[in-house]
Amino acid sequence: MTAEAFDKLAVLGIGLLGSSIAHAVKAYGGAETVALWDVSEDVRTRAARVLNCEVTDTAEAAVAGADCIILCTPVGVLGEVTQQVAGTLKPGVILTDVGSVKATAARDMAAHCPDGVHLIPGHPIAGTEQSGPESGFASLFQGAWNILTPLKESDEAYSEATQRLMGFWKQLGARVETMDPVRHDRVLAITSHLPHLIAYNIVSTAYDMESVEQGEVVKFSAGGFRDFTRIAASDPVMWRDVFLNNKDAVLETLGRFSEDLAALQRAIRWGDGDTLMKEFTRARGIREAIIDAGLDTAEADFGRRHIDPSSEK
Amino acid sequence: MTAEAFDKLAVLGIGLLGSSIAHAVKAYGGAETVALWDVSEDVRTRAARVLNCEVTDTAEAAVAGADCIILCTPVGVLGEVTQQVAGTLKPGVILTDVGSVKATAARDMAAHCPDGVHLIPGHPIAGTEQSGPESGFASLFQGAWNILTPLKESDEAYSEATQRLMGFWKQLGARVETMDPVRHDRVLAITSHLPHLIAYNIVSTAYDMESVEQGEVVKFSAGGFRDFTRIAASDPVMWRDVFLNNKDAVLETLGRFSEDLAALQRAIRWGDGDTLMKEFTRARGIREAIIDAGLDTAEADFGRRHIDPSSEK
Repeated sequence: MTAEAFDKLAVLGIGLLGSSIAHAVKAYGGAETVALWDVSEDVRTRAARVLNCEVTDTAEAAVAGADCIILCTPVGVLGEVTQQVAGTLKPGVILTDVGSVKATAARDMAAHCPDGVHLIPGHPIAGTEQSGPESGFASLFQGAWNILTPLKESDEAYSEATQRLMGFWKQLGARVETMDPVRHDRVLAITSHLPHLIAYNIVSTAYDMESVEQGEVVKFSAGGFRDFTRIAASDPVMWRDVFLNNKDAVLETLGRFSEDLAALQRAIRWGDGDTLMKEFTRARGIREAIIDAGLDTAEADFGRRHIDPSSEK
Repeated sequence: MTAEAFDKLAVLGIGLLGSSIAHAVKAYGGAETVALWDVSEDVRTRAARVLNCEVTDTAEAAVAGADCIILCTPVGVLGEVTQQVAGTLKPGVILTDVGSVKATAARDMAAHCPDGVHLIPGHPIAGTEQSGPESGFASLFQGAWNILTPLKESDEAYSEATQRLMGFWKQLGARVETMDPVRHDRVLAITSHLPHLIAYNIVSTAYDMESVEQGEVVKFSAGGFRDFTRIAASDPVMWRDVFLNNKDAVLETLGRFSEDLAALQRAIRWGDGDTLMKEFTRARGIREAIIDAGLDTAEADFGRRHIDPSSEK
């Protein structure tokens, strides 16, 4: 055991999150060495160019000898990647992930996780709209929340492993919280998944307007639309997997959203200014709470942490 | 006639836009003097404290002797304010506004505008989520588009007046374009009005979730939700008036949005990943066009110009 939380960290999936973890460990510590692997040879080649870490040809080589493995792939392949490296995982090592959905992630990884391996799913709420191994940067996790969803059946060794993993993330600058995975998925459905779905949808609607030209949409996008395009630039594979894997919570949240929107639509149609005023005014309350909590800083606004990818490519 | 576009500029309504115009004229020129008035005595008192300009007790006093009057009130009272100062408006002066809706704005102002006054409606696509006389700043219009919607019946004097007004806005750093008011309202319905309605609505939906606590929404808002709260912090009075005055275009756009959203909802329910991928991927195209057009700069991202108020309070 060294002064760092881990001797060797393995990162599987070298997108924004994977490459940011590599940069962050070099900058702030947390592991003596880092080995990375990605399913795409192109991504591995690019990663080897920009990251000052070992990039291996196989997942097994990255995992060999590691005491912590972080899966940074789209959530749809977490089970598959776990199965791929299961034979290389030694009892006592920590297996975690950065997926934006936690209930199915925990289930899929657990299905292939050997006995004695400490499976501790996690989700750093940090990202930008960029993807790929070139998009990572060391300070991505500074001040960001990281939600760990430890399994219920825990013994002393598991608790100790959870503490180590928490220490690792704190070393990278994150604030760490534990939560039940189903609760995580409900909270993120409203704070992240629905906002992304809405952003994708409004950009899609703009594409199909016959009465407005594309050039006009682009030119006059400063009126609010542009912020949605930034969110909608996030990695499509990652987000497809999020929606397929958090179906129930997203559909429930989306149902409420559509009901509320129908009420606003009706108020507009019937010229009901009082209803519009009431809804628009109370929206300010949550904004003030976010500012009061110090969660909307200039740094955070600067396109840095306002969306939530844990993307592979 | 001086070297500036106008001898005396009158600004009625001292919110974000009105106070920013005052700051901008002091910084970049455009008028020899500026007089401001607001219907609220409280706003007038605060404006007199923070702005280095004359703040008058009556609208008539601000307008007296002015060769350009800019109405910076919510669009719902543009007609009323025009009526109030109609008797003070001399032939040859320019009457314009900054309202986010142009067809009803032009109609309401025209109904009370004396003969010989050059009515040239306008809409600078610039703003922040802040409101009130303290929120203005000189560089708000730098690089922002300003859409003027000149009337169809134009003579030489009117054309000359339009050129002067364009020169004024360029002096403040804006890029100026002319457009038909109905077309303006259609374009802005998708690039600004719908995004704001959606942002208000999602914050409203979050308020009413029984299964998720307010504190959790605030704490984990970095996943995308926070950007929506910023847009939804915009002035409720201004936005109520926008929706009441651009009903047809907003309802048409909203209908398309809801149809598209229903298709995404169905894809999520039936696990149709291909449809999700297709929609999410094409959303990147518009984003790239915006970046290519140089319309998403760090400066613009910094909470400065991404929403679109022309607010009174």
